[in-house]
Amino acid sequence: MSSRPHDKYVMVTEVGPRDGLQNQPAPIPTEAKVNLVEGLARAGFKQLECSSFVHPRRVPAMADAEAVFESMARLAGTRYVALVPNMRGYERARSVDCDAVAVFTAASEAFTQRNINMTVEGSLHRFEPVAKAAARDGVALRGYVSTVFCCPFAGPVAPEAVVPVVQRLLDMGCYEVSLGDTIGVGRPDDTRRLLDIVLARFEVDTIAMHFHDTWGMGTANLLASLDYGVWKYDSSAGGLGGCPYAPDATGNVATEDVLYLLDGLGWDTGVSLEAVVHAVSALAEHLDYRLPGRVYNATRATQRREALDAAASSGGQA
Amino acid sequence: MSSRPHDKYVMVTEVGPRDGLQNQPAPIPTEAKVNLVEGLARAGFKQLECSSFVHPRRVPAMADAEAVFESMARLAGTRYVALVPNMRGYERARSVDCDAVAVFTAASEAFTQRNINMTVEGSLHRFEPVAKAAARDGVALRGYVSTVFCCPFAGPVAPEAVVPVVQRLLDMGCYEVSLGDTIGVGRPDDTRRLLDIVLARFEVDTIAMHFHDTWGMGTANLLASLDYGVWKYDSSAGGLGGCPYAPDATGNVATEDVLYLLDGLGWDTGVSLEAVVHAVSALAEHLDYRLPGRVYNATRATQRREALDAAASSGGQA
Repeated sequence: MSSRPHDKYVMVTEVGPRDGLQNQPAPIPTEAKVNLVEGLARAGFKQLECSSFVHPRRVPAMADAEAVFESMARLAGTRYVALVPNMRGYERARSVDCDAVAVFTAASEAFTQRNINMTVEGSLHRFEPVAKAAARDGVALRGYVSTVFCCPFAGPVAPEAVVPVVQRLLDMGCYEVSLGDTIGVGRPDDTRRLLDIVLARFEVDTIAMHFHDTWGMGTANLLASLDYGVWKYDSSAGGLGGCPYAPDATGNVATEDVLYLLDGLGWDTGVSLEAVVHAVSALAEHLDYRLPGRVYNATRATQRREALDAAASSGGQA
Repeated sequence: MSSRPHDKYVMVTEVGPRDGLQNQPAPIPTEAKVNLVEGLARAGFKQLECSSFVHPRRVPAMADAEAVFESMARLAGTRYVALVPNMRGYERARSVDCDAVAVFTAASEAFTQRNINMTVEGSLHRFEPVAKAAARDGVALRGYVSTVFCCPFAGPVAPEAVVPVVQRLLDMGCYEVSLGDTIGVGRPDDTRRLLDIVLARFEVDTIAMHFHDTWGMGTANLLASLDYGVWKYDSSAGGLGGCPYAPDATGNVATEDVLYLLDGLGWDTGVSLEAVVHAVSALAEHLDYRLPGRVYNATRATQRREALDAAASSGGQA
């Protein structure tokens, strides 16, 4: 479990390089991914999900996971996480000195069936050797539970369905479990109902919230979670990534929007919003869509205007 | 003052046809605007801002204000509002049987100076004959105070600066005053600080909040305002319109995002989200930018997928 440095600290876990790029159809050069990860680490994240050691045929955009981990410079004190679906993925991750891995399951049977062709229990069973190996190797283990509010295939998910999955992941040795609103439909009351039940059962330090902004509720849900004492949130720089269940729609809540909210409410994240914008704007030229993050776009627009103003006032012709 | 039908009712005022289209560079056919207004009225809004009777040289996109009002069919029980800057605008509005007008000023001297080349007091002074004429003619008068958190030219605005402007507008006969975060930088704590001061002085029924989503805080600010009992909010269908102070950035909070939040929290708006999407998607083809509303885009993406699924399952080749 990560210890909280002080009680105004909120840990934002950047997941853009993995969750934001995994469904990207246009090829992104490995070097651009490495620059993104390094830029984000310099921005101040203490936890950063870099890639996914899944089968390259299944997720071609993550085929260069080893190359990313081998090329990137690592900062002391930053936890670089990779998603691993099974022992094969775990071994690949270990071969490049990955010191934190994440496993991914769901609160909906229909979702795991359609997504990975097994039951929730089957997926947990497959993680057991990964968890044992990680414990043996001193590798930190993070858990994801997706579809915590609603499943794209089976509809609403009861908060009670989330509890046993979290329990299993914690029992397996996860230091924290991230609860994902995979299709981004949850609203503040859904968040409150879930947290009422989850936090009655588990320590708040073991729970992260992973909101998507597909239905515009990302920051509103985060605001509601803060009232519950939740201090761990996942987000994606620039709002990188889309929603695989609704093409053209938004995926992860944008990191900059989260930081802007938290900064304004007096929370300390240790992350520089400007540095995040800088890191992801360099990647943006490789994308075939416009990054959806509100604060990202407002910041970039302001920067462009200031550059024009500066050029004009210096007598330049720009 | 509008009376609240019951205490779970929230009134959403649609401002897209005015606030969302006034800075639109590409010409929009008047017929498309009329269809938009009519579609939005059918969606259930009880208050709908349709156009602006400003000088056509100053705001060319609103030059067809008379034509819009003359062509549109009106529903009983819906208040169709137009912005009027002065008596000339008021007379134009009256000539087409506009029965509600809005006047627009700011909490920042620097903003009114740069925007309309006069002091805040000067702008209020210019509204006095409008207010007298409206009272005489039985025309409802709405007030706007912009830059309630921050001015794009002078920086932060103190909540205390908002109070006297609201007072003047109410004294003049406004049935409600809409408080606008013109550049969309406010965060929930700013909203709380403002409402602490404003609601200590004025009846909650006289206050509407007008959030922009430029920095991604639209729904989070609305969530914070609901805790204060505020039940009047302005929004723009599809997130129509941009931010004139940050080109490429988002303007008004999207109506669909607001409705999705309110519906989920159990508030009754009387407005059909689907009908709003339907009305604004017909207009979207005339825009030179992609509508930014999260729920608008998620809904459209879902509709496209369902249409493809339906075509596929019926053996079609679509």
